[in-house]
Amino acid sequence: MDLFVENGYEETTVAQIADRAGLNRATFFRHFADKREVLFGGEDLLAGLFADAIRAAPPGVTLTECLQAALAAVGAVMTPQRRAAAARRVLVVAANNELQERGLLKHARIARSITAALRERGTDELTARLGAEMGMLAFSVAFERWMKTTDDEPFPPFADEALSDLQARAAELVLPSRLSA
Amino acid sequence: MDLFVENGYEETTVAQIADRAGLNRATFFRHFADKREVLFGGEDLLAGLFADAIRAAPPGVTLTECLQAALAAVGAVMTPQRRAAAARRVLVVAANNELQERGLLKHARIARSITAALRERGTDELTARLGAEMGMLAFSVAFERWMKTTDDEPFPPFADEALSDLQARAAELVLPSRLSA
Repeated sequence: MDLFVENGYEETTVAQIADRAGLNRATFFRHFADKREVLFGGEDLLAGLFADAIRAAPPGVTLTECLQAALAAVGAVMTPQRRAAAARRVLVVAANNELQERGLLKHARIARSITAALRERGTDELTARLGAEMGMLAFSVAFERWMKTTDDEPFPPFADEALSDLQARAAELVLPSRLSA
Repeated sequence: MDLFVENGYEETTVAQIADRAGLNRATFFRHFADKREVLFGGEDLLAGLFADAIRAAPPGVTLTECLQAALAAVGAVMTPQRRAAAARRVLVVAANNELQERGLLKHARIARSITAALRERGTDELTARLGAEMGMLAFSVAFERWMKTTDDEPFPPFADEALSDLQARAAELVLPSRLSA
């Protein structure tokens, strides 16, 4: 992240990254398929954590409880180091179209993995897709708020708050459509 | 689309596309910034239609009515030709990672344009973001269902049905979380 911020993402080479981290190139490529994955490798971990938590939730819990469990599981890897890197990471990604596209692809894969885990529980397809979008939006909102804090505050309360804020908003979407026309 | 299906997206050149369409390269590039835009130029149009319809909705209508108006406006350009091309387009995009990423970028831009139009109406930020995700999901679901029809059925009833199906599902998300634990 230091190198990306100092020299720009495009200008930074894998050799420089490996050198700064005290690794050789072979070791780098055992951990990352390419340079972009330095920024997005964590997303595959998130997809797995979300899905495993949903699979492990007891039978009969509500959709919201599934999402709470998934966000709580993800909270375990939202470390102070990740928070400290987040603001710089956002700037690096925003400056590069290719990185934005990769980020959206990862986001879509996490959503698909949440949808699949909900489907395995017997959730119907539309509810699963809506639940995945809701979960991802709660995660994004929580992350944006958490990123802006200056102390090392834990992630889980931000996730709970974002999810319940969105629940309150979702109520507007279930209103019959001709109410105030 | 014929060329992409016949020869593969990667293998098809702009010269071949222009030739098949009876245009020269200069005319092609007046209409499309690059080869990918042949597949995604329509998305910029959609973003504008969604946002304009939301801006034009009367004051005081519900969020759902805004989304209905936006989907109705988009319905006007969902022609039989677009439906006929859709199934082949999906296959071409699915076979190419770069096209999937571009598709997700366009999708994200439409969602941002819906969010911005809702914000201009005074909708708070979280509601606007949730509304945009809901509108995009309704559009995707309607499009998938419409694409599978064999007759030239109009798009608007599919949009209405997808939105009300999602509204019914959203009700599960506003349930208090400890209901069935």
